[in-house]
Amino acid sequence: MATINGVPVKSPVPLSSRMQTGRAMALDVWSVYNAANLPADCINLGQGYMNFPPPQWVKDAATEALGTVAGNHYSHPKGRPRLREAIRDYYSASYGRTLNVDNEILVTSGANEGQYAMFTAFLDPGDEVIMFEPYFDQYLPSVTFNAGTPVFVPLHPPSSANRRSTSDDWTIDFEELRAAFSPKTKMIIVNTPHNPVGKVFRRDELEKIAALAKEFNTLVMADEVYDCLVYDQKEHVRIATLPGMWERTVTVGSAGKSFAATGWRVGWLVGPPTLIGPVLAATTRIVYCSNSPLQEAAAAGLEQAPSRNFFPLQLQAYQERRDILLEGFDRLGMNYTHPEGSYFALLDISNVDIPDDYPFPQTIHGRGRDFKACWFIAMEVGVSSIPVSEFYGEKNSHIGEKFARFAFCKDTAQLKEAVERLQKLKNYLK
Amino acid sequence: MATINGVPVKSPVPLSSRMQTGRAMALDVWSVYNAANLPADCINLGQGYMNFPPPQWVKDAATEALGTVAGNHYSHPKGRPRLREAIRDYYSASYGRTLNVDNEILVTSGANEGQYAMFTAFLDPGDEVIMFEPYFDQYLPSVTFNAGTPVFVPLHPPSSANRRSTSDDWTIDFEELRAAFSPKTKMIIVNTPHNPVGKVFRRDELEKIAALAKEFNTLVMADEVYDCLVYDQKEHVRIATLPGMWERTVTVGSAGKSFAATGWRVGWLVGPPTLIGPVLAATTRIVYCSNSPLQEAAAAGLEQAPSRNFFPLQLQAYQERRDILLEGFDRLGMNYTHPEGSYFALLDISNVDIPDDYPFPQTIHGRGRDFKACWFIAMEVGVSSIPVSEFYGEKNSHIGEKFARFAFCKDTAQLKEAVERLQKLKNYLK
Ligand SMILES: Cc1ncc(COP(=O)(O)O)c(C=O)c1O
Ligand SMILES: Cc1ncc(COP(=O)(O)O)c(C=O)c1O
Repeated sequence: MATINGVPVKSPVPLSSRMQTGRAMALDVWSVYNAANLPADCINLGQGYMNFPPPQWVKDAATEALGTVAGNHYSHPKGRPRLREAIRDYYSASYGRTLNVDNEILVTSGANEGQYAMFTAFLDPGDEVIMFEPYFDQYLPSVTFNAGTPVFVPLHPPSSANRRSTSDDWTIDFEELRAAFSPKTKMIIVNTPHNPVGKVFRRDELEKIAALAKEFNTLVMADEVYDCLVYDQKEHVRIATLPGMWERTVTVGSAGKSFAATGWRVGWLVGPPTLIGPVLAATTRIVYCSNSPLQEAAAAGLEQAPSRNFFPLQLQAYQERRDILLEGFDRLGMNYTHPEGSYFALLDISNVDIPDDYPFPQTIHGRGRDFKACWFIAMEVGVSSIPVSEFYGEKNSHIGEKFARFAFCKDTAQLKEAVERLQKLKNYLK
Repeated sequence: MATINGVPVKSPVPLSSRMQTGRAMALDVWSVYNAANLPADCINLGQGYMNFPPPQWVKDAATEALGTVAGNHYSHPKGRPRLREAIRDYYSASYGRTLNVDNEILVTSGANEGQYAMFTAFLDPGDEVIMFEPYFDQYLPSVTFNAGTPVFVPLHPPSSANRRSTSDDWTIDFEELRAAFSPKTKMIIVNTPHNPVGKVFRRDELEKIAALAKEFNTLVMADEVYDCLVYDQKEHVRIATLPGMWERTVTVGSAGKSFAATGWRVGWLVGPPTLIGPVLAATTRIVYCSNSPLQEAAAAGLEQAPSRNFFPLQLQAYQERRDILLEGFDRLGMNYTHPEGSYFALLDISNVDIPDDYPFPQTIHGRGRDFKACWFIAMEVGVSSIPVSEFYGEKNSHIGEKFARFAFCKDTAQLKEAVERLQKLKNYLK
């Protein structure tokens, strides 16, 4: 019998079997470390949403849209013309081509739903989807719900001896990657900048991935929702722009990540008409269209970003946030991964000394050591984070068990306070 | 090879086979009769969205939410607490039970996505879903994308001799309905008030449907998105409230329909924990959550509706709109169905005399006679409508071919103008 959060489900008729895949009915990590389960004054560096609002001038465009008639009614399933035009104008240069608003751009209900729709459009039972571990946790059920089979390839972390490793030290074993391809491979997901590692894939890495995608004739889902968050002058390369890759790649973007508006549920896909067409057909049935007022706001955001120098300024603010957190890790003297992109940093928690008799909740029994460490840190230190083994298949979850993910999409005051609290961890190191 | 709008698709790898079901890649009726394809001054009574905005006080709550931090960020996948509480407070009485906000209410990205998620949660390959014809066109691909098999049972229209029939004259042949059930039946969809017929299912009809659902142990999807639009003092019965039906029924609602805000993409499901739990797991993966600011607005709408007497006043306004349209049909002397609910009316177009040599576009070649009639009426009279055969499987599409659907969710000025234009049809009757 299926269970929901451990409680057996007695339906008049059974669940679909897909709901018994992809950890779909298991208690997810977000619920375990939900603010409601943690001390009231715990600082939440767990979930990846901001504790600050989107820019006022972007929100103003939402209010303006609410003041119109059309801005409150169904959009075209492709997305509102103004937003598609704004995406074209903002992004065309980075793709090295003028994007066609009719068939190369698709607005979706968050990046998440766009990715789900792409799986719906392309996966047949047994089709394999390669994803690097750690992976954004939504990929797994999104693939299995659409009858696909996930195939995991780990990013190899730097050796623990290395105190100040960077996300670039998380490496791909290309022999291992090649071995993961098969005639059943339909797609590979390339998430850069990467959640949770912060890795910004190098051009030479992307070239090798691209060569394999071409050799095995697979699609590529380029999840680039953090493309506006690349630090230290590192180059962000779109795999879609490598030779021969445009026709097989769909690139994913998110207004939520770009404008600090995760609750707006506006994302977009960019790709060739042969790929965007089927995903349009899928998303049309899944959600019909994304909400209209916040599409207008996202359009205004992209339209005005250049003249307001918005993305460089935002990047600077995130880099400052990152550096506050990393300085705190430095002072702690613990190992961590210096992220070159995204708004996550991995702390190596292997030397946190967790008392055996600590009162852990039922919900984390039987989970990895990182689940215990994150709980312990949240309770004792007052800062919540997310255990990284959640982002692994079974085989490699021991790699993830060594890390906790801290999100630094928070204002500097909160980060400074978190960093001070974290110093308490020194008392619990082996 | 798959085709998109008639153009062959050359992907590096083929589409999923599900995209070749449910007319997924065919040109849909909304695109054929899209305003862009019709004369610029054509009055759009085709698509079911309003030409007026949501109430100002509901929109104000959206703007207020935009002014907060949390109102711009991820909601809980179950929906924002305030909206779930508002749904509980507003609807509990009509379900004859106090709804539990934790596990009996689920906010979705429009009713549409809620319905999709329910199919995802419950349909296994080959599971059958019974739907009455004409059906809301999204049901078909939503079922087949989730590996289900649609089974059609027609509502039988009144005989054409009957000039002023009502939606109640569209009847169910219960022997035919019983014959449609099989051991593979997983679900039956009951849409009341009904799009496009306007039928409000009578208690005795719902009792017979309920008896079959219990006998064959199936789920019921009660699509009641038009529950606030029931005219002529007709009783709206929720099938979920019939004996033994709560545990097998999920009822679907829509802020878009309730508050004239189709573009907000906020809907909700109400049902027992055993059914809501799995759908929550599905929707969490499909979209993660619905957008936050417009959930807050929908909450304000439900909270304030009683003290503002909003729904009765809105109903009165729609009844006035309906009566303008029907008076126009009366003057025309054509047969039509008097709708008791929803905001659609079916005009019997069988005696419209369509010239054989009329320049129809390529897109409607090979489609039913109603496709031609709707095109002809839009071009000659300047009022667009939707051909009803689109809402039928192949076998019974001849029934739908006799009707055009007119949406009256438009302001009175536009409806009056439409009605005057429609009088021109007199020149084209056989
Ligand atoms: C790597 C990655 N992809 C996609 C998403 C989903 O983005 P959205 O909120 O636009 O659905 C996230 C959100 O955390 C993410 O981290
Ligand atoms: C019968 C029916 N169900 C569901 C829907 C979808 O509602 P929403 O716009 O909330 O997704 C519609 C919209 O036209 C409808 O007519």
